[in-house]
Amino acid sequence: MIYLNGAIVPPDFARIDPADRGFTLADGLFETLRAYRGKPFRLEDHLVRLESSAQALGIPLLFDAVRIAEAVVELLEANALTEADAAIRITATRGTGPRGLLPPAEVKPTLMIATIPYAPLPESCAAALVEIRRNEGSPLSQMKSLGYLDNILAMQAAAARGAEEAILLNNAGRVAGAARANLFAVLDGRLLTPPLRDGVLPGIARRVVLELAATLKIPTEEASLSPADLAAAAEIFLTNSLFEVRSVGRLDDREFGAAGIAARLRADYRALT
Amino acid sequence: MIYLNGAIVPPDFARIDPADRGFTLADGLFETLRAYRGKPFRLEDHLVRLESSAQALGIPLLFDAVRIAEAVVELLEANALTEADAAIRITATRGTGPRGLLPPAEVKPTLMIATIPYAPLPESCAAALVEIRRNEGSPLSQMKSLGYLDNILAMQAAAARGAEEAILLNNAGRVAGAARANLFAVLDGRLLTPPLRDGVLPGIARRVVLELAATLKIPTEEASLSPADLAAAAEIFLTNSLFEVRSVGRLDDREFGAAGIAARLRADYRALT
Repeated sequence: MIYLNGAIVPPDFARIDPADRGFTLADGLFETLRAYRGKPFRLEDHLVRLESSAQALGIPLLFDAVRIAEAVVELLEANALTEADAAIRITATRGTGPRGLLPPAEVKPTLMIATIPYAPLPESCAAALVEIRRNEGSPLSQMKSLGYLDNILAMQAAAARGAEEAILLNNAGRVAGAARANLFAVLDGRLLTPPLRDGVLPGIARRVVLELAATLKIPTEEASLSPADLAAAAEIFLTNSLFEVRSVGRLDDREFGAAGIAARLRADYRALT
Repeated sequence: MIYLNGAIVPPDFARIDPADRGFTLADGLFETLRAYRGKPFRLEDHLVRLESSAQALGIPLLFDAVRIAEAVVELLEANALTEADAAIRITATRGTGPRGLLPPAEVKPTLMIATIPYAPLPESCAAALVEIRRNEGSPLSQMKSLGYLDNILAMQAAAARGAEEAILLNNAGRVAGAARANLFAVLDGRLLTPPLRDGVLPGIARRVVLELAATLKIPTEEASLSPADLAAAAEIFLTNSLFEVRSVGRLDDREFGAAGIAARLRADYRALT
């Protein structure tokens, strides 16, 4: 079952209008998060981010955060996921509109939620630094908007090189993160992650990790990173709300050893869930 | 009526699957073109571009160009637009897929066509140079992919400043074009337009104008342009397949006089239609 505009319905009965601007122009946002044993993790943080991005883009949400949170819980129940680990996706678009880029004066936004069982990924991965760049010159680089084709291409380029994750630079040649995750590097004993201005999504898992690092008194800094920094790093790991903390065991030809800081943060992250 | 996956149906009966990757990830392409008195203009060029981009992205098209062209003609007939000026939009997505960025091994692509009557825009417009940048570091900057939210934001920023068109730079500070058009500038008697590598869509109207300029023996060059070049230009005009050749009468605070070269190219463009 999926949730669409107030109703929980079988996917085959759910219809997106062909004139939905989410479909025609990627005029919308989404959130992906995880439920542990049926409980959504940091749902409020995700909804605050969704509301904040929607406000910045002038996209009204069909319902407020409280009601969306209720819908998430109802859908998990409808899908018998109240005891399961699940991936949750919330999609919000500006709704239908006539031809043209400027939105109509009155919009009727679309809200869709989907939940599926989630199977954890391996804790370590191979990553590839791909050619395609993140657009630090767009505010969308700091939002989870629907335009994900760049990230699809990045993942495909990584897969073609035998890697499961893709790392992207921005147009200034600075590390922006991974196609579906934020990036952290341990360099000279400090934990570093690129600042948002480098074209970085303010990931919820990224924030959790920054909070945990502070608790653990790990020296941590938001700092621009170059490809040379990645090559010199003692550890690199990726974070997102589904796979939590994923160590990069190999980046292109460079192998990384056992990941001490990532392992600690991973354990502490899981302890929160 | 719209055309969806082989059938001409009333829009209210047309259903986009909520799992369509065009909706969830902007994993698709589109073309916009114009019919004059019911005849699509340069349809073959649009379909060649669509096929070329689709091939580059590994997105299969539901039907080949010949069959898509037939569908366009059938839809114009179904909508009683055989004698009318119309805007035609062809949308092609990778179709449905499970959660995740990497496409499934087998995809069933989506093909949608919509036609509506087209009313010409004024020949001249006010334009604004907006803050948001085009991503010259992505191959998508040279394709008409579904991710148009950057362009929506650019148009909104222009509208907020009383302008109808938005001009964007790329991250290197070079002119990339307009949110929904290619850009030409007349500078020192030469007609200049940014090269594709600056993050420019290879527009069909752009190509028509380049062909016409060659016929008219106007000295023409693909050359990177700076904001200072725009300020120094004798004329600036925009091209797209709907509004053809649109003069920029004002760019921010700078007014432009009667547009001699644009007027000639506009007249010759219309003579082709």
